Amino acid sequence: MVRILGLNGSPRTYGNTYKLLKIALEAAKKLGATTEIINLYEYDIKDCIGCLSDEPLACRYPCVINDDMKRIYDEILKANGVIFATPIYWFSPSGVIKRVIDRLTALENMIFVSGRSWVEGKVAGVIAVGNDSGEIQLISLMYATLNSMGFIIPPFALSFFNMRGDVLNDDETLLEAANVGRSVTLMAKLVSEFKGVWFDVKLREWVSKIKDEIKRVTEENKEKVFRERSKIITKLMRE
Amino acid sequence: MVRILGLNGSPRTYGNTYKLLKIALEAAKKLGATTEIINLYEYDIKDCIGCLSDEPLACRYPCVINDDMKRIYDEILKANGVIFATPIYWFSPSGVIKRVIDRLTALENMIFVSGRSWVEGKVAGVIAVGNDSGEIQLISLMYATLNSMGFIIPPFALSFFNMRGDVLNDDETLLEAANVGRSVTLMAKLVSEFKGVWFDVKLREWVSKIKDEIKRVTEENKEKVFRERSKIITKLMRE
Amino acid sequence: MVRILGLNGSPRTYGNTYKLLKIALEAAKKLGATTEIINLYEYDIKDCIGCLSDEPLACRYPCVINDDMKRIYDEILKANGVIFATPIYWFSPSGVIKRVIDRLTALENMIFVSGRSWVEGKVAGVIAVGNDSGEIQLISLMYATLNSMGFIIPPFALSFFNMRGDVLNDDETLLEAANVGRSVTLMAKLVSEFKGVWFDVKLREWVSKIKDEIKRVTEENKEKVFRERSKIITKLMRE
Amino acid sequence: MVRILGLNGSPRTYGNTYKLLKIALEAAKKLGATTEIINLYEYDIKDCIGCLSDEPLACRYPCVINDDMKRIYDEILKANGVIFATPIYWFSPSGVIKRVIDRLTALENMIFVSGRSWVEGKVAGVIAVGNDSGEIQLISLMYATLNSMGFIIPPFALSFFNMRGDVLNDDETLLEAANVGRSVTLMAKLVSEFKGVWFDVKLREWVSKIKDEIKRVTEENKEKVFRERSKIITKLMRE
Repeated sequence: MVRILGLNGSPRTYGNTYKLLKIALEAAKKLGATTEIINLYEYDIKDCIGCLSDEPLACRYPCVINDDMKRIYDEILKANGVIFATPIYWFSPSGVIKRVIDRLTALENMIFVSGRSWVEGKVAGVIAVGNDSGEIQLISLMYATLNSMGFIIPPFALSFFNMRGDVLNDDETLLEAANVGRSVTLMAKLVSEFKGVWFDVKLREWVSKIKDEIKRVTEENKEKVFRERSKIITKLMRE
Repeated sequence: MVRILGLNGSPRTYGNTYKLLKIALEAAKKLGATTEIINLYEYDIKDCIGCLSDEPLACRYPCVINDDMKRIYDEILKANGVIFATPIYWFSPSGVIKRVIDRLTALENMIFVSGRSWVEGKVAGVIAVGNDSGEIQLISLMYATLNSMGFIIPPFALSFFNMRGDVLNDDETLLEAANVGRSVTLMAKLVSEFKGVWFDVKLREWVSKIKDEIKRVTEENKEKVFRERSKIITKLMRE
Repeated sequence: MVRILGLNGSPRTYGNTYKLLKIALEAAKKLGATTEIINLYEYDIKDCIGCLSDEPLACRYPCVINDDMKRIYDEILKANGVIFATPIYWFSPSGVIKRVIDRLTALENMIFVSGRSWVEGKVAGVIAVGNDSGEIQLISLMYATLNSMGFIIPPFALSFFNMRGDVLNDDETLLEAANVGRSVTLMAKLVSEFKGVWFDVKLREWVSKIKDEIKRVTEENKEKVFRERSKIITKLMRE
Repeated sequence: MVRILGLNGSPRTYGNTYKLLKIALEAAKKLGATTEIINLYEYDIKDCIGCLSDEPLACRYPCVINDDMKRIYDEILKANGVIFATPIYWFSPSGVIKRVIDRLTALENMIFVSGRSWVEGKVAGVIAVGNDSGEIQLISLMYATLNSMGFIIPPFALSFFNMRGDVLNDDETLLEAANVGRSVTLMAKLVSEFKGVWFDVKLREWVSKIKDEIKRVTEENKEKVFRERSKIITKLMRE
């Protein structure tokens, strides 16, 4: 049984962000997942203060800041998948989603404390809703961020709506939101079989052994390619 | 047995882009994958001409343009995972990687022709190498693009190096590149078990049935939340 | 006499973000500007609650939320140029910079209330500092955002540092930061001469008159170009 | 008299990209500018081969590659402002716009050859047209790129359209496109008065003198702020 958490970053629990998140989670339920929505605006989540820059190991679960983020951490730790739903405020997530992301560093940074990012192998989806534009700018930022922390992005894990009006009238977008829930859940099930680590620090040794081989191959390539390139370039330099 | 394809978007097969790609593929091999590198600069790959905008169904495999992209399509179709390695040219991929991405629309757009994106469920990783900056701008763009086409992004599927000098001297970056190969391969194995579809167009019917339920819930929420918000907002409007 | 405001989004007023901002403002002073730094972490700035989505005209100066943002608004309104300095938290600005950006909508949205964005024609620069990566992702987002509000981005208005260690040891970065201050100040002086509006809503009439001309030209082009394209595309469709 | 160049990156000179570019240039003409459109698809513009990575000074006007880019360089050098109009192909510019951007390095890199980026102080605007999404992702990338080369981004220098259908029916978008032309032209006129340099390498000396002052200030700040932060952080570390 997998657990999918929906984080709602909109203050409007009657708006399009919430509706798309709801439909994604219903699709997850349909596949047997247990689900829950957290309305982040009801929580007190303070700014990250960047302890990391003073002392790398200071940033760790459950964070030096004592606020409601503790409960969010624990919900995320219990979940197999997380769907982040946010309004688009200036082409990026709402302030509270941003603060949750920044504070998630305390889970990610466990890689230096305990050898493993505590969100590694969890599955993520993103829902973005605005009146105007910027949905891909937002989603691409979230993808790079979440994946750098160790999240998996399953196929078609994005859904967005960027127009005025009720999204419930737009069946194509609803279909996409449902498929975010579906894709996150299917992936969560698949990876629940997997018991190993994703990021393997022990490859470090192997890497240092294989370097020579790679050095040799690229030097051969240089021999061939660089001569040609060099001719072109030095020709110009002489002129 | 899974197959991992490396697309090298650098003209310099002796440079850092190539080296990191090579190490990623060696790590893939170590896990039992068969691998291949394609040096895209040796192929004639022309610009996408955007047929889609004239006629949505015109964009399909194998593309109206008759050039070497046909061979790239076929290699990608055979592969379970693809690692895109590119130099960073102005915070984005090199021209040839960009053209490959644009032309991949012919596989993605099969969703309208045959009901399924032909890259759905394949696994992707990204390697980006520059002298200066822009690696995340590049990777986030690639992630949003590839995932919109149906690719899976497995944990830590990114590796970058953004300094002058030989990357073979930087063990941390080599470790990250090796883990791109590892992560892509592990995921490719996991999903090779999965025989269903990811994006399910048949959810459309279910979606239209569930709408009423969602409408009801959000109207209840509106009742509660909106009254409060409304008070604040109309107060200002009156002033 | 121009006035350049520095908004410091870092909690660490002894760190690299602050240092680069300081050097930019010193360079501004050298050109005759008056300058000031505001340390945003010392202010209580709450989340935007997106009134706009309920009622477009509700979002206006001085914002429905009663907190320290009022003082920031007034400082920005007095300034000819604003330099935003922020640590890089997950490839994007710190939470407090994000909240300031979101709340600036109350100045930008005056375009619908009074016919003009109240930040139109002001000059902006961006300083981004991290330990790792993401500087361009952050800066490009800020640029698109600030310019959409009406800010001018003068040449080389960006400076970043993305390594551990004291930036005061890196003369090239200091030079770039100084030039952010210089460029913002020079531009602020130049545009202080300009008394007109930048975004001219009165062009609306002219636009509707010129449409026919553009229609005619593009139909002629279509005649020529489309025939050729059409041949290629329909050829495929028939196959 | 200022000169505004329009670079059309769409193969469809009858489509929405072309139409918005045309209207922007008409607005420029209205303000007295001379204008020209270049349809890049009619030019042979090859990939940048990244000479820079082998030899920094090899990248210079007019580029080692002998193709039609030479004519584009010369048109850009003559222009006071450049409007880049592009279709949105996977959230980023079309291949030919990408190649032009990459090859512009030969003008920008003159900073190392002759002390000054040859596009410094030129004015830029961006028009992006698609069927779906990604306009801000594209524009933000272009902004960061062009500004890093030395271009000025004047207020509201962006216009986009992201729907099916003829943009000539959407007066708001046409108004925005016209204002791109207006804003670029107004700024080009303003800066034509300015005879100095924007990026001043001679600030280097001043920078090294002012360092001590900044060091002193931030050490005082550290004294005050760090003690407080340190307490919080070390408290956790002890637990």
